[in-house]
Amino acid sequence: MLGKGFFDSIVYNLESLTFGIIAMTDKSVTAYINDNAQRNLEELFELLRFESIANNPTADGCGPCADWLTDKLNAIGMDNVQILPGDRQPYVFAEKIVDPAAPTVLFYAHYDVQPADPLEQWHTPPFEPTIKGDYIFARGACDNKGPLMAQLAAIEAAVKTDRLKVNVKILFEGEEEIGSPGIEEFLEKHSHLLACDVISTSDMLNFASGVPSMVSSLRGLCAFEISFTGPVADVHSGMEGGVISNPINALAKLIAAFHDDDGRVTIPGFYDDVREVSPQQLEQWKKLPFDEKAHAKRHNVSTLAGGEAGLHPLVRNWARPTLDCNGIIGGYTGKGAKTIIPSRAAVKITCRLVPDQSPEKICKALEKFVIDHTPAGMTADVTIGPAGKAVCFDTTTPYAQAAAKAIEVAFKKSPIPIGGGGSVPITEWLQRIIGSEVVIMCLGLPDDNFHSPNERFRMDMLENGRIMIAEFLMQVASSK
Amino acid sequence: MLGKGFFDSIVYNLESLTFGIIAMTDKSVTAYINDNAQRNLEELFELLRFESIANNPTADGCGPCADWLTDKLNAIGMDNVQILPGDRQPYVFAEKIVDPAAPTVLFYAHYDVQPADPLEQWHTPPFEPTIKGDYIFARGACDNKGPLMAQLAAIEAAVKTDRLKVNVKILFEGEEEIGSPGIEEFLEKHSHLLACDVISTSDMLNFASGVPSMVSSLRGLCAFEISFTGPVADVHSGMEGGVISNPINALAKLIAAFHDDDGRVTIPGFYDDVREVSPQQLEQWKKLPFDEKAHAKRHNVSTLAGGEAGLHPLVRNWARPTLDCNGIIGGYTGKGAKTIIPSRAAVKITCRLVPDQSPEKICKALEKFVIDHTPAGMTADVTIGPAGKAVCFDTTTPYAQAAAKAIEVAFKKSPIPIGGGGSVPITEWLQRIIGSEVVIMCLGLPDDNFHSPNERFRMDMLENGRIMIAEFLMQVASSK
Repeated sequence: MLGKGFFDSIVYNLESLTFGIIAMTDKSVTAYINDNAQRNLEELFELLRFESIANNPTADGCGPCADWLTDKLNAIGMDNVQILPGDRQPYVFAEKIVDPAAPTVLFYAHYDVQPADPLEQWHTPPFEPTIKGDYIFARGACDNKGPLMAQLAAIEAAVKTDRLKVNVKILFEGEEEIGSPGIEEFLEKHSHLLACDVISTSDMLNFASGVPSMVSSLRGLCAFEISFTGPVADVHSGMEGGVISNPINALAKLIAAFHDDDGRVTIPGFYDDVREVSPQQLEQWKKLPFDEKAHAKRHNVSTLAGGEAGLHPLVRNWARPTLDCNGIIGGYTGKGAKTIIPSRAAVKITCRLVPDQSPEKICKALEKFVIDHTPAGMTADVTIGPAGKAVCFDTTTPYAQAAAKAIEVAFKKSPIPIGGGGSVPITEWLQRIIGSEVVIMCLGLPDDNFHSPNERFRMDMLENGRIMIAEFLMQVASSK
Repeated sequence: MLGKGFFDSIVYNLESLTFGIIAMTDKSVTAYINDNAQRNLEELFELLRFESIANNPTADGCGPCADWLTDKLNAIGMDNVQILPGDRQPYVFAEKIVDPAAPTVLFYAHYDVQPADPLEQWHTPPFEPTIKGDYIFARGACDNKGPLMAQLAAIEAAVKTDRLKVNVKILFEGEEEIGSPGIEEFLEKHSHLLACDVISTSDMLNFASGVPSMVSSLRGLCAFEISFTGPVADVHSGMEGGVISNPINALAKLIAAFHDDDGRVTIPGFYDDVREVSPQQLEQWKKLPFDEKAHAKRHNVSTLAGGEAGLHPLVRNWARPTLDCNGIIGGYTGKGAKTIIPSRAAVKITCRLVPDQSPEKICKALEKFVIDHTPAGMTADVTIGPAGKAVCFDTTTPYAQAAAKAIEVAFKKSPIPIGGGGSVPITEWLQRIIGSEVVIMCLGLPDDNFHSPNERFRMDMLENGRIMIAEFLMQVASSK
């Protein structure tokens, strides 16, 4: 059902959707996509209204969202549509086997989203999609419901026009944003059901607007929560100041010790296994239109000072590991002053890892570092969170070339190979456990406010994304 | 009105209150105090039920508490009882002038309390006083409503038995726990009304149970809130990690930089004006029964590692300045992981100051330090909070000796002079603005959980506190 506010948007929207004529190798698929653009957009709005936060403490938005997806998959003519239980939230599976001898493409996307906080920084309600200018604003618009809808619409167009010449499988996950707990066991258990020749995902950003991109590497991730406990309860900072050690002061010393003055991580062994970037790769990246000043301005910072001193920002983001605090809390955080030495302080940390680094090894090294840096009077606690290896993608294979052609048809430019600073651990698990090649066709843009307030998805990315995925299906069929 | 739970307590209580016979210089005052002990306790319970948090965001407990106090002051026979407007919460004033030629004692106490959080660590409701064993548990029991009630009961006994031979004035404050905003202007404005010969407060802790104490110095205080802002909104820690600087990492570096490895504050000039402790004083303090192991065990820490290495804990707490973080917050602090570089992180800090240090000078030095330590890509913001100078009290004056005798009568031991780690800035303002000597007669104990969950007040401190204050009034009269 459409809520208030949607119809205002429609008016705005119709112009964008009818702008331009889309050229594609198959005219009937193109026609179907264009004829159904408005309905697809309405369906995306329905999808975006689900508060599908995997660890939502107040409501379950994932279950109803998964049910909605199964209804939709049945409606577009997929077979064997089913809900498969995950660790906390369900997976949605479907398939369409048109020819056992033809290649099989598995489309992966996730329907869960990041929490929406800080809520006060949103200009529109995060779960009431709103069109402003060229964009749809909503939590999950870009990450990853917009791209998911492009997949669905393209597959529907191919099925309904009887142009689907390859087999299609679909796996929609509901726990990506909480690190996909238990997914490795899930993939192993269902490896026969998920067997395929190539896996397609669109959970990544293009390098820039007008620069269609193909991802050749993604960083891995490991997450920690570290707490220091001092006195058993908060104590008076006058009565005990100078006597009882302060957990915030101590935790700050630990966090500060993680980096040297050049921004290098000081944990022993942290860089041991880092795969060096080739000089060719480096040259290629330095030619990319990366505007440091514009990037800094977009984030309202004076300079791009994150990461290791002396390296190109793209190298720091794509090819070097990092350690970032994601959240910190301790003591009194309300209004005014409260003169205490708190009992406890805690920090959430994630490291981004690069090819050949082992999350397990980094976890152990970090734990040891914390123990070695726990001062007298403090008790440390380290909780290990989600982890995933970095992953590489060969952009020269036939399936990668099929993807490149599809991108070129949809976006009128050949894609360029780029690295990725983010982590999509699922890609490594899919590669390793399903044993098939993964190709990533990006639909997001760097200023889509991924994981941030005012997340958005550009309308033409939905439009061209449908064409891209449909064309990819054609290209895979013809590459056979 | 007494709530449920109080009558259970009464049963427990009657035994404690009737235990022992109290020797005092005036038998009729003693008898009055003993005869009215049960009613005084019930009145203290009423007083403790007011949620008189000065900056309480949900309710005004201070206004009704001040009204209750004026009713009580009228009932005990005080004159000129009035509410005087404060910055946010009212002051309560009263006086009893028996002889213009007699000395005038001004009793100061505060009826506001610290916030009660963290609520989950309380074993009984913070605003429903509960007697367990020898203690009354409630927020404000010790700090400062229990001592305030001792003052009231003693003055009542002297008035009602017609034994009041000195003039008495009362000033009860409602904003002490938020740093007494505007109190200097208030004291200047009402200096005539508040004019007196000696000021008595009981907002301090004895050195230990069975060690009655007189305070010879208190530390000063200055408070700050420092925030670092990086990107204008939270950003994805993968997409931007290594490029955009992290405010939590940066703030941790700043906080870590405040102390060297020996626990000394590194802010240039921080120790410049510190008054050194005399060797005699040091010797005296070292003889005090301070048990480091027991103190550490009480707070469940392995060692007393706060403050500067190599100094005696009492020196660190009484005679050396400190810098403690009271609270820190930034980024995502909910359940699980959220892979962001946050936009902002903030810390609340208080410094405890010792005699001759200037809060203004320390504020300026800290601000400069923050500016000098703000890294590229960060915007710093420093907010200066409440401040007060350290203060000394001469324990050899006639009024101090009157207090010492009163303590001895009430607690059967001569008091020892101690330093104080806490800050009661009012004492410095009272000294300077009213221009009268301040004597502090302690009624709290170090394990009363001052400012912490499960704050408590020992029953015999209420009992003996009444005697002590009544005796002080007698001693001042006879010292004339």
